[in-house]
Parts: sequence; structure tokens; C-alpha cells
Amino acid sequence: MQEFKRLTPYRKALEMVLNDLSGIEEAEEAPLDEAIGRVLAEDVESPMDLPPFDRAAVDGYALRAEDTFQAREYRPVELKVIDEIAAGEESREKVESGTAVKLLTGAKVPEGANAVLMQEMAERKGEKILVLRPVAPGQNVAFAGEDVKKGEVVLREGDVLRPQDVSLLKALGFKTVRVKRKPRVGIIVTGSELIEGFDEVAMKRGRIPESNSVMLKGLVKEYFGEPVFYGVFPDDEAAIRGAIERARNESDIVLVTGGSAFGDRDFAHRFVNLLFHGCTNKPGRPIGYGERVFIMSGYPVAVFAQFHLYVKHALAKLVGAKSYEVKVRAELTERIPSQLGRHEFVKVFYRGGKASPIKRRGSGIISSLVESNGYIEIPEDSEGYLEGEEVEVVLY
Amino acid sequence: MQEFKRLTPYRKALEMVLNDLSGIEEAEEAPLDEAIGRVLAEDVESPMDLPPFDRAAVDGYALRAEDTFQAREYRPVELKVIDEIAAGEESREKVESGTAVKLLTGAKVPEGANAVLMQEMAERKGEKILVLRPVAPGQNVAFAGEDVKKGEVVLREGDVLRPQDVSLLKALGFKTVRVKRKPRVGIIVTGSELIEGFDEVAMKRGRIPESNSVMLKGLVKEYFGEPVFYGVFPDDEAAIRGAIERARNESDIVLVTGGSAFGDRDFAHRFVNLLFHGCTNKPGRPIGYGERVFIMSGYPVAVFAQFHLYVKHALAKLVGAKSYEVKVRAELTERIPSQLGRHEFVKVFYRGGKASPIKRRGSGIISSLVESNGYIEIPEDSEGYLEGEEVEVVLY
Repeated sequence: MQEFKRLTPYRKALEMVLNDLSGIEEAEEAPLDEAIGRVLAEDVESPMDLPPFDRAAVDGYALRAEDTFQAREYRPVELKVIDEIAAGEESREKVESGTAVKLLTGAKVPEGANAVLMQEMAERKGEKILVLRPVAPGQNVAFAGEDVKKGEVVLREGDVLRPQDVSLLKALGFKTVRVKRKPRVGIIVTGSELIEGFDEVAMKRGRIPESNSVMLKGLVKEYFGEPVFYGVFPDDEAAIRGAIERARNESDIVLVTGGSAFGDRDFAHRFVNLLFHGCTNKPGRPIGYGERVFIMSGYPVAVFAQFHLYVKHALAKLVGAKSYEVKVRAELTERIPSQLGRHEFVKVFYRGGKASPIKRRGSGIISSLVESNGYIEIPEDSEGYLEGEEVEVVLY
Repeated sequence: MQEFKRLTPYRKALEMVLNDLSGIEEAEEAPLDEAIGRVLAEDVESPMDLPPFDRAAVDGYALRAEDTFQAREYRPVELKVIDEIAAGEESREKVESGTAVKLLTGAKVPEGANAVLMQEMAERKGEKILVLRPVAPGQNVAFAGEDVKKGEVVLREGDVLRPQDVSLLKALGFKTVRVKRKPRVGIIVTGSELIEGFDEVAMKRGRIPESNSVMLKGLVKEYFGEPVFYGVFPDDEAAIRGAIERARNESDIVLVTGGSAFGDRDFAHRFVNLLFHGCTNKPGRPIGYGERVFIMSGYPVAVFAQFHLYVKHALAKLVGAKSYEVKVRAELTERIPSQLGRHEFVKVFYRGGKASPIKRRGSGIISSLVESNGYIEIPEDSEGYLEGEEVEVVLY
């Protein structure tokens, strides 16, 4: 393996990627049911007050608070019940001094009333009620616009929509929402050693089941993208060149695994004008990028690190996602040494405020991905972290 | 509103739900691509060693380490190169004393060899190499089974599959994986006040857009379920009864929103033999459960809390999911008082190790869901937490 002449520092390499890519302009109208996980293409202003009207917060009687100020248990105030309404109904009556309207939770408080007396606080006598204690103005009323005011921005461009966000949009009368088009991500897997599925004879002879495609497809979907898989290619120069050309024409970005080093069979990087090739991050050092194509490692562990260190951020840039990582503070259960000059991607298991580094860290150890649920980064100028030190963990 | 005679403590109510539900037995074979987010129905044992053979970790020469022990720069050892192989190829030659096989990263180390010399450490001379320094046995070799041993359990029943997990399964030669059938969750929304979409006239008259369905559908999908929406029903006794019957026949569990209180139009709870009705959790107190049916509030904020406090755990029980919550430790930025006897569900915004409670907390404030990204629970016997206190946040 020919060594890299000069490694590009990780932060600089990432910056070059992000500077090279432009955000996707196209947006599309998505039905709310299908908008969860998508990224908002514009700020959303509320077209209405929420609640849209003064609303009863309890079952009871809408009345004028002033009428009750003198009410005492030993000297109840008598009011005439002039109407009864349920939620969704509107009273045609206006509440005037000496009158009340019976209503249920969620019903519109009628004109003239400024408070709702809880049902249990009144004694019903035919068409009248006896009010036993005073009610303050505004009591048990949810006022129009108390939750959201008409014209207020409720969600912003770049927000990643969750069930509760689309619920608010639906409560505001929306049926669809403008979201960014999903980035199309071409995936090309290379390597003559790769087979599909279990084949004991082939494996005895030095071949291994391919496993990068399913991981990358899943990760791309998790981070806003639409994966397009172009297949597994043997180390054949023409075939790989053709696949990269086609994928680049059809995709926003292209991920190529395998062939990122300088071996005799490492072709992929020769077909792309790379901005950099070989970086300080470990694992995943032999990454290259140029012309919207990522040339990635063959080892799944290195590919996984390269995805989180580079591709994830590229996808977020493409869709303009503002918040796409769950970062938590954690105390290290043991020290992690790191070599100066390396930007380390260290897999950890996080639980209950503590992060434990996964012991078996080699690029060939796929099970280390399964045992971990997050990572910490150790930049080039650090020799690592001590046991008990507080670190930032990105959960996955 | 008739008050609840006695509130069931939250923990006890949740226990009653979980005891009442049985885990789903049926499993299905899912292609790996479609298995992400699903729950494993059985432990998975590796059918093979991973790597399946001793593998070169670098480009170089497979040789017998013993041959190189005397090698020095001023007194190189000469070896004969008897074969050249790439990854995926197998050498038919056996490495014996005085010989070496050239190979590329990932290639199978030939019989007889026990180490790989990095290419840069050898000087090539026609059919021979000069070895300039000694190589230790095992150097630059990834041994068969080093990652995973044949027969080892790599994933367990109840694991929720992530991209890296299915990648490992694919690396082990699997094409499908046995996962639990998704729970079918019937969703019934009730309330005569509900309309679809924006209708200014209707809203002036006391009606509001329905917004629970889209939230519950999204949450059910997030927590392993398959939502089946039965529609929005007005407060009509026969219609609601019919919908509940049908949904219960066709679903594992049923969620009914609206009608959980004791108002004149609150029917839903009358058609189910409830194990409890009215609990100490706030918001969402008027929750009822019986015969696989959850009778939930009408307010989205209360529904959201009831989902996280009850339904999420019920779904996890149905599929046997072991780990389905992201819990982090956080420092409170301000105190949260809580009334004794209430199990409070407090929405917070978590960032950088700190949790800030959302100020506007009423059941009617849907925007509080949008502003938050997690919650803390304050049990009945606590009067709340102090500013600076460490609490557990469940992220959503």
C-alpha cells in the first residue's frame, strides 16, 4: 500500500466537502402523514389563533365573573341558565348579567361571558343555578391565541419534523407542508472479494459476504436521503468508472466503498478529481472526496465512521437540516489514549450519564459497531481523555 | 365534569396494563433491507467465523515470521515470491521457509504463512524480496474468528435493529432475519367539535381541526407499531361503540381519543370493562384502560403524555423490545415544583447536559410539544426538583 503523502486534517477536509456542496433548492408539498422525518423548506406561520376562540377548559357554566363576586355558600347568587352547548356547538345567546350558559369542556365561551364556573361549584335548580363562591375573570377559559397567535412562526426552515410538529400543523388547519426534496444518494460497492450471502466454499477460498450496502442504505434513509443502490462491482476499471459516471449524473452525492487506498486494484479514486484523499481521521483515513463523490473504505467499520464524520454532515447541508444529532454529556468510565495528529472516532456505549469505550477497536471488528450506541471524537491536538473526564457523546 | 372517585397511582396503572397484555408470539422473516427498526424475534448465532479466514490487514507479503527474525537493514533476508493474489483470490501455493506470497489487503493469508510484511518494508528484486527488518508472528494478520466466532450470539431477541446491526448480519451471510410481527394499533378519534383542515367559518362557531390522528400514527410507527386509523367520529354512542368493537377485533391494541372524562358526551369509556379510569399522571389524568383499549384524552398534549407514559411501554411489551428509550442525565436549569400525589410528565428542552422545563405547561398548549425534545417524570411522593439538580431526561 502506497502511503498518503500528506494527510488532510479532518476539520479542513469536512469544510472542503461542505463548501463544495450546495443546498438543494427544490421543495415539495408533502401530506402531513408522510412529512415526519422530513426537513421543512420554509418557516411556517400560523394562519389562525389557536385555540381559534375562547374555549371552556372544564365542564360548567359560562357567566360574567362580576355576577359572582358576592357569592358565598351561605348567600348563593342565582343565575338563569339560558342555553346548553357541547364542544363544537355555538350558543346563539349572549350572556348578560344574571344569566349563564351551560357548556362542556372545549366548547366556545359565548359572547358576554368572561369566565367558566366548574359544574361541581354550582347547584342546579331547574332552569337556574345557585353559585356558591366567586369566580375570577378568565377562570377556566383558554383564550383565543393563548397557544399560538395568528401570524406567529411555529416551525422554521430546517426543522426536522416529528409527530408532535405535524400534529400542531394539523391543529392549525394545514393538510400538507413544504419540505425539501430528499437528496438522492448513489451507492456503489466495489471489491472482487465480495459475494452475496452465505457460501462456505467461496469463503474458504478468500471471499466474504458484502455488507456495506445495507448499512449505507439504512444510514442514508436515517439522515434525510433517498438511497439508490448501483450494485456490487468487481475490481474492474471500466465497470467502476461507468457506474460512478452514471451515479453522479443521477444523484446529488455518490458513495463508493472499496478502492480508496493506493493498492494495485484501487481504481475508484482515479476517476474523480479529488479535493483531498487521505485524512487524519481514524478509522477511515483513506477517504477521498471530489465532484460530489465520496471514495470510502471497504471495511464496514471505517465506512461507518466516514459516514458519521463526513456524509451525515453533507446530507444535512444538502437539505438544510438544523438539528440532526443527539449529543449528550457523559463521564468516561476509563481513559482513552489518542495519538497526536489523529482525529479519532471512538465508539462508546452510553448509559445513565456514563460512556464506556468499546475495547476492540480495529477497522475489521464489525461487532464493535453493534456493541456501541454512540461515539466521541478526539481531535488531532489531543492525547485523549482521562477516566472520569466529561466528554460529548453523539448517539446513534 | 364529574370528578374521579379515586385516582390510580401511575406506576400501578402502568403495571396493570403491562400485566394485561401478552407479548406477540408471531414472527416473520424480513429481508435485511426492511429489518431496520424492527425487533429481533430470536437470538442470532453466527453461522461462521468472521473473518472467515486469516486475512491480510495490509498490502504486502505473507511469509513465515521465523524467516525474518535475523533480518536487519544492513543484512537483509532474501525470500522468493512464489505467488501474487488480490482480495478474493486464494493462493494454491504453500508458504515454506524461504518463500513469500504477495497479497493485497483483505486477501486470504496462504497456508504456511503466519505474518504479513508491509509492502514498504520490503525491497523487490525481480522474483525476490529483501526483507529489511523482522516481523512478529501474527503481525498484520486478522485471524479467522477474531471479530465473531462461529456459534457466538451476535444479537439477541428484543434487540431493535439498526443499520450497523443488519450490516453485521449481512457480513455473516444472512439475507433475512426473524423479527416480531408489528403490533396492529387501531386509532379512533372522537369529538363532535372536530373538523378536517382549515375552515374559518366553522372555527368561528366553535369547531377545531382534528390533530390527534397524525400524531398517534407517527408515534405508533416510531415505537414498532402498524397504525390503522378508523376515522374521526362525532359524539354518537352507537358509532363509537361500533368503531371500538371493530378496531378491537382487528388490532392488538386500540387507542381512542376524546371522551375519557365523565361529561354527558363522554361515551367511549362506557363500552369497555376498564381496569382503571383516572390516574395520578398529569397531564392526561382521565386515562382509562381495559380489554386492550386505551381511552385517552382529547387534548393533544394530554394524548402525547399518555402515549409516552402508557402506550409506548405497552407497544414495547407487545414486541418484546428491550431498549426503546434514549435516557440521558441532565442538570435542571431551574426548579420544577410538583404537587404531592401527582405523577408529573414535564416537557423539557435538553441541550449540552442541561434540561430546561418548558414554561407554558397547560394541556391546551400544543406548542409546548414543539418546543421540547424530552421529558422528565416526577413521581407522586416528590415535591419536585431544585435548580441544578441532576435528573433523568427521556428524549423524544
